Amino acid sequence: MQCIDVRKVDKFVGKTVCLQGWAYNFRSSTGTVKKEPRSPSGYELTVSDISVVYRAEAYPIAKKEHGTEFLFDHRHLWVRSSRQAAVLRIRDQVIWSLRSFLRERGFTLTDTPILTPTSCEGTTTLFETDYFGEKAYLAQSGQLYLEALAASLGKVYDFGPTFRAEKSKTRRHLMEFWMLDAEVAFMHHDESLELQEALIERVVQDALTQSAKELTLLERDVVHLKNVHAPFHRITYDDAVSLLKEKGSDITLGQDLGADDETKLSEEFDRPVFITHYPAAIKAFYMKPDPMNPTRALCADLIATEGYGEIIGGSERIDDLALLERRFKEHKLPRKPFEWYLDLRRYGSFPHSGFGIGLERVVTWIAGLPHVREAIPFPRLLNRLQP
Amino acid sequence: MQCIDVRKVDKFVGKTVCLQGWAYNFRSSTGTVKKEPRSPSGYELTVSDISVVYRAEAYPIAKKEHGTEFLFDHRHLWVRSSRQAAVLRIRDQVIWSLRSFLRERGFTLTDTPILTPTSCEGTTTLFETDYFGEKAYLAQSGQLYLEALAASLGKVYDFGPTFRAEKSKTRRHLMEFWMLDAEVAFMHHDESLELQEALIERVVQDALTQSAKELTLLERDVVHLKNVHAPFHRITYDDAVSLLKEKGSDITLGQDLGADDETKLSEEFDRPVFITHYPAAIKAFYMKPDPMNPTRALCADLIATEGYGEIIGGSERIDDLALLERRFKEHKLPRKPFEWYLDLRRYGSFPHSGFGIGLERVVTWIAGLPHVREAIPFPRLLNRLQP
Repeated sequence: MQCIDVRKVDKFVGKTVCLQGWAYNFRSSTGTVKKEPRSPSGYELTVSDISVVYRAEAYPIAKKEHGTEFLFDHRHLWVRSSRQAAVLRIRDQVIWSLRSFLRERGFTLTDTPILTPTSCEGTTTLFETDYFGEKAYLAQSGQLYLEALAASLGKVYDFGPTFRAEKSKTRRHLMEFWMLDAEVAFMHHDESLELQEALIERVVQDALTQSAKELTLLERDVVHLKNVHAPFHRITYDDAVSLLKEKGSDITLGQDLGADDETKLSEEFDRPVFITHYPAAIKAFYMKPDPMNPTRALCADLIATEGYGEIIGGSERIDDLALLERRFKEHKLPRKPFEWYLDLRRYGSFPHSGFGIGLERVVTWIAGLPHVREAIPFPRLLNRLQP
Repeated sequence: MQCIDVRKVDKFVGKTVCLQGWAYNFRSSTGTVKKEPRSPSGYELTVSDISVVYRAEAYPIAKKEHGTEFLFDHRHLWVRSSRQAAVLRIRDQVIWSLRSFLRERGFTLTDTPILTPTSCEGTTTLFETDYFGEKAYLAQSGQLYLEALAASLGKVYDFGPTFRAEKSKTRRHLMEFWMLDAEVAFMHHDESLELQEALIERVVQDALTQSAKELTLLERDVVHLKNVHAPFHRITYDDAVSLLKEKGSDITLGQDLGADDETKLSEEFDRPVFITHYPAAIKAFYMKPDPMNPTRALCADLIATEGYGEIIGGSERIDDLALLERRFKEHKLPRKPFEWYLDLRRYGSFPHSGFGIGLERVVTWIAGLPHVREAIPFPRLLNRLQP
């Protein structure tokens, strides 16, 4: 007798099949499949034989409410709950959509290293390890490496874990999270925004169709998600600050936007919104200045709907060697470990743009979760390295 | 005028288009596309205008032979060579095939953590880092976590970087490499082998069709690859040792196979071969003993053709709590950090099997590379953390 995947039960109506599973959510039984419209799955099994594989001891997670710490201490069992399984399935679907979209557009996946000799953003928020006598740091982004690979393959992306040893305890931060970086040779800032909105539109619309069952189980109100179609809104940083001031924020021109500001802004728009042209001074050293106003960078953050905050950050990159060397001086960055990065401007420099997507933030938004920590199988938080 | 992807030039015959690129391998020019059977691409462009974006300084990599160290010191530029780009494209294709196959078979991707509080294989080959006052180690495998997730989602896999701080300098070792782990609830050892051979058959056959151009460029002799169809060969460890002794190896029963032994064995078979039923004593603590002979484990390593060595290791897992607890004692493993793993046997234990595939080894084999270090964009070796 055939042991079948319960998701394919519709192919076995009238047949006697074997099902294997856990009795808390489905039957470990042998039975005959028949249609049953009153059943949640549309099918019913008449059991002809049951064989018990194991009898579990008293299960630690009960139907009653448990505290968050208790649930994360038991994450290895909690993942079995229908809600947590649904979130993990949505995560899988989001990853698949991201990869499929980029592949269809001619991108090559080129994964960048985790162990790196140095970082461009200071070492205070880096995890450090001994690499046979040298100091190595866990990468926070693969972008610089991707720029080298874009010079080889044109359109490239990486997609792997990244690490930030930040002593922050917000609902948007994990110490270990998955990031997709994309980099495209000869792509300018505006084209990058078009690529980003097409990608996010695809991911959200795929989730609505492919993960409909999971979204229903999570009781996600999908009204806003249905609206996620390109083009997204675009607002300059300067206009965003003016708008925020009107709304009562105490932000001043030149300051970076806080999480509350992002929430306020998202309330003003019916679709995701790009905040463009941030002050170059508060953004990363490699961002290309706007030729129309060099105090502003050719960059954008994409803010999700409903207060879920930033999900993408991107920019056009500086392609001029002299300007990049000046930035190294201004940011007091060591030259030697980055000579290879400067080489990319020495030998066949080219205009290029790219962006990074935080996977767990996208999943949190689509699934409508209260905290990013449920969007990854085993979250790593300030006070949590276990299980 | 439209700037096009040169791979889609066939859609623009007779049209005037813009191409962007580097003059060392294609023209940065505006031109009219026409069919030209004598051209390698089958098309020719009549240039109507050229605009130079940047003029490069003297390029460090010349047509002459360079030493390996020089090339890896310039990996950020070396990736632009047609051979290296071809390898990276094959890698991308292999990853796509692996993920597609598992998705089609109903697997859910559930990525496991890199930062882990402890390891089941001792800490001597682990990279260590400070995690806000606790010790954390970079994962060598996600298997134990995947077992927890298989109890939720049935068929799961992870696919990410793993780390081994091994002071070995062989052509098969990297310090940082990508690994795919798969784990399936209710799957037994024999079914696992069938899944593995179907997966590898798919990956190799996809590469032969989808990466034909790249394999030709690399001058890969694909005779052996064409032969990679299920079922693969199976030989027990005991029979493998007898065979190796006949072939002059000085291996003795009870010892693990060395790289030379794997090469010798692969010469005996026209397809990949599973070495099954290794002595339990030389394998990992979690492997299920063969009920017919408990000194042997229900496990297998898959050896590629042509001396490329082991590409998969897998086993059925111990599902009996008492036996697993005994193994913890025998292997002198600390109980406390693994209580969560024991929980999986306490609460609804189930037969299950899984395996791990080393990505770079598969790419090295398919692309026919002399060393695994060319199968990853930026390799990390004993003496190499840069660029």
